Amino acid sequence: MEEYKVLLKKIKEYIVLDQIENILNWDFETHMPPKGVKQRAEELAMIAALKHDKIADPEIGELLKRIKNDPNYSSLNDLEKRDIYLIERKYKMESKIPKELVEELAKQKPIAIDAWKRAKKEVNYLLFKPELDKIVELTKKKAHHLDSDKEPFDALVEEYEPGLSSAQYTTLFNELKKGLIPIIQKCVSSPKQPDLSLIKRKCPIEIQKQVSQDISKLVHYDLDRGRIDETEHPFTTGYYDDVRITTHYYEEDFSDSFYSVLHEAGHGLYEQNLSQEYKYQLVGESSSYGVHESQSRLIENLIGRSREFWEFYLPKLKKMTGDVFSDIELDPFIHAINLVKPSKIRIAADEVTYSLHIIIRFEIERDLLSGKITTEQLPEIWNSKYKEYLGVNIENDSEGVLQDTHWAGGSFSYFPSYAMGNIYNAQMLAKIAEDIPDYREFMKKGQLKPIIDWLIEKIHTPSNLYDPIELIRKITGEEINPKYFIDYLEEKYSKIYGF
Amino acid sequence: MEEYKVLLKKIKEYIVLDQIENILNWDFETHMPPKGVKQRAEELAMIAALKHDKIADPEIGELLKRIKNDPNYSSLNDLEKRDIYLIERKYKMESKIPKELVEELAKQKPIAIDAWKRAKKEVNYLLFKPELDKIVELTKKKAHHLDSDKEPFDALVEEYEPGLSSAQYTTLFNELKKGLIPIIQKCVSSPKQPDLSLIKRKCPIEIQKQVSQDISKLVHYDLDRGRIDETEHPFTTGYYDDVRITTHYYEEDFSDSFYSVLHEAGHGLYEQNLSQEYKYQLVGESSSYGVHESQSRLIENLIGRSREFWEFYLPKLKKMTGDVFSDIELDPFIHAINLVKPSKIRIAADEVTYSLHIIIRFEIERDLLSGKITTEQLPEIWNSKYKEYLGVNIENDSEGVLQDTHWAGGSFSYFPSYAMGNIYNAQMLAKIAEDIPDYREFMKKGQLKPIIDWLIEKIHTPSNLYDPIELIRKITGEEINPKYFIDYLEEKYSKIYGF
Repeated sequence: MEEYKVLLKKIKEYIVLDQIENILNWDFETHMPPKGVKQRAEELAMIAALKHDKIADPEIGELLKRIKNDPNYSSLNDLEKRDIYLIERKYKMESKIPKELVEELAKQKPIAIDAWKRAKKEVNYLLFKPELDKIVELTKKKAHHLDSDKEPFDALVEEYEPGLSSAQYTTLFNELKKGLIPIIQKCVSSPKQPDLSLIKRKCPIEIQKQVSQDISKLVHYDLDRGRIDETEHPFTTGYYDDVRITTHYYEEDFSDSFYSVLHEAGHGLYEQNLSQEYKYQLVGESSSYGVHESQSRLIENLIGRSREFWEFYLPKLKKMTGDVFSDIELDPFIHAINLVKPSKIRIAADEVTYSLHIIIRFEIERDLLSGKITTEQLPEIWNSKYKEYLGVNIENDSEGVLQDTHWAGGSFSYFPSYAMGNIYNAQMLAKIAEDIPDYREFMKKGQLKPIIDWLIEKIHTPSNLYDPIELIRKITGEEINPKYFIDYLEEKYSKIYGF
Repeated sequence: MEEYKVLLKKIKEYIVLDQIENILNWDFETHMPPKGVKQRAEELAMIAALKHDKIADPEIGELLKRIKNDPNYSSLNDLEKRDIYLIERKYKMESKIPKELVEELAKQKPIAIDAWKRAKKEVNYLLFKPELDKIVELTKKKAHHLDSDKEPFDALVEEYEPGLSSAQYTTLFNELKKGLIPIIQKCVSSPKQPDLSLIKRKCPIEIQKQVSQDISKLVHYDLDRGRIDETEHPFTTGYYDDVRITTHYYEEDFSDSFYSVLHEAGHGLYEQNLSQEYKYQLVGESSSYGVHESQSRLIENLIGRSREFWEFYLPKLKKMTGDVFSDIELDPFIHAINLVKPSKIRIAADEVTYSLHIIIRFEIERDLLSGKITTEQLPEIWNSKYKEYLGVNIENDSEGVLQDTHWAGGSFSYFPSYAMGNIYNAQMLAKIAEDIPDYREFMKKGQLKPIIDWLIEKIHTPSNLYDPIELIRKITGEEINPKYFIDYLEEKYSKIYGF
């Protein structure tokens, strides 16, 4: 179909621009000189405007109409129909947002991120607040353009987790909370507590860097199509043959960077293994941010914090680090890296309490966007929710409301996808256990290929053939269900904490 | 004038795209994963096409026509008239080249550069030849579109050195050769020869990196608006608040990186000190590649290889490098870093023989583009010219025709600008000596600010107010004249070599 070919050409241009934007953002976080912010803001605004022009081009609307009215439409295969559906969804969404707003948002994001970095460093929320106000205002406008009948949170969620809504999140998160709280209580009140001094040992950063290379290879992240850099906050960016991850090294805690690398390599794997056949098509992108997070957290936690993985890797770590960990035994080590303890910082949170951090953010951003709360009240509300949900006292805003970059970057309605990653990946693991009954034995030998191949076949290669709800259904034959994640935690932590 | 405002907006977009292209190219050379080449080629082709669309937009032609016919045109000031002239020149040039050709060239360049890198590494010209053939073919087409009445070399030269031509280069270079040959002969045949072991000493790369930081600050290159990375071939890229330089460290020869950093910092200074007032206008860019080179070589050679500079810096270098250079005395050191010796590699060539390397390239690329010679004959002709002009035997193509990246990157008619840099900067130095009679005394104290300020005032801030011929006239009251460069060399080297 000629019209579809024209569409494909336009979409390819859109995706190439998207990759250019990724490189500019990566450079912004990793290498840009400090005074380059305003210049970069101009560049990012230009790319955002160009992307908008490409995807909101009325000609795309015309082509879509002609394709759907074409008698040959029904003879297209499912893949082509899905691709056309995705183009239409994106076109409709983007063409609702005025170009000026796209540019304003793109220009404001790097400026707000820069202000957030300074505010966090100087422990002064007020340095960030005026820029956050602008971001919130622009984001509300965007939500209003997208769907003025919906709550702003819900108008925005489609971008991150298509098919999900704040109502569903509320249901799922209530169920999650109900399952998590008793596990947390049992862990916290157990007489058996880990000795953290086993992992908080001085380990030279040069050695940690070698370990990073080693484990990223172990999980089959391809360094010929990727690289590892250092940033304050780890992230992954890129596409197919150029997928980059970052980490942060702390001399006194190797586990921080170790798990960042595993986490980001999990994201990286997904991008590197998208179907080459669908490259430069919307159907060739990832399914959702939550599915992405399921891949990173599966590698980080379900594999990387398992007893089986460390049966293989602890001797290797000992060898690579000289004297640092030479006296350590497996079980106390496993307990230390699986400490369950309510804490202040999301990215350092354990598997069990992590989702509570997300639930707090979900509730706050929903209310912030709807106008129920203001940016003025933000630190106070943040702190009181941390007290209520996690029982911790936030002492300053840098360990409180300033800890995450997302809102500065204009990413609202994104956090819930992180918790969805936990829910999805536990469902996936249950299926892996069925399909590869010996998977734990493979892990013990450091043979991760069968599991990675399963992920490639079931998740990565299908790329964006299915929205998350449908993807989970396809893989597991079931609906999204937090039970698997709770069961996984229950089984694992009852062993570790002995309850 | 309303039309001019519209023009300025369009030009700003063009320049922002240009900066994005710079970042993509910088990343390609410094950080891109090895398998990212094809993806990057798509990105670069897209940016090239977008730039072309912006600058060859027929609306620009319309606006220009309306502006020039406007009765208010004569009331515009000189700056505005110059800016409009530059827009027209660029518009006319770019709109002659078909967009497909622009895209093809942009896509072929990274692929040819990648092939060139492999060919050079594996010492196998044939790995590069097929990709070079494509580049030459596309470049010839481009030259034909630009001006089919001119020789291809001359059609292309406008991009690098507006106002110059192959005829003028031939005249200037003949004069240059006539002056250089006797100086080279006197140096080579002098009984007084330097002891190179004074500089070829093992110096840890970590220390060399500190020296790089130190000297880049010393020459007032702003590291808050720049950075220093490592690449096989040093280069500078960027604009105003984000201007990046690269270097290459060799443990056994600190001077290699030392002079690369000074050279590139000289380029960087120019970009960082363009008039902020004309930012995002064509009049706010640099004047020409030759003027750019005059700035890099002025810092590298006229300052950085002078006896006066080292009177100040040798004690500092000794302090920073511990025992490495502690026994060295000024005069033998000055001689070692000013060795004159015909050699194979352009970027390692001394001040006196350097221009001969350029003359060889000028003659070859002129003939290659006109079809007088083929890429098949290239290595042979290269080697025979090196024998004839410099008396050296090229033993393999990696030290011969494969040494430079320029042709792989599609830069033809660019090399002569390097020799023009020498001619220009000696004329500038003669003027500096008039305007700042004590400049040598300042150098002896490491006070470079008066010289840098002179460069900022006379060269950097005027940005692109004048083409190179006019700029030299404005600054010196004279025409372009190689005599100053010859005189400078004669004076300097007669002292060093004692003739």
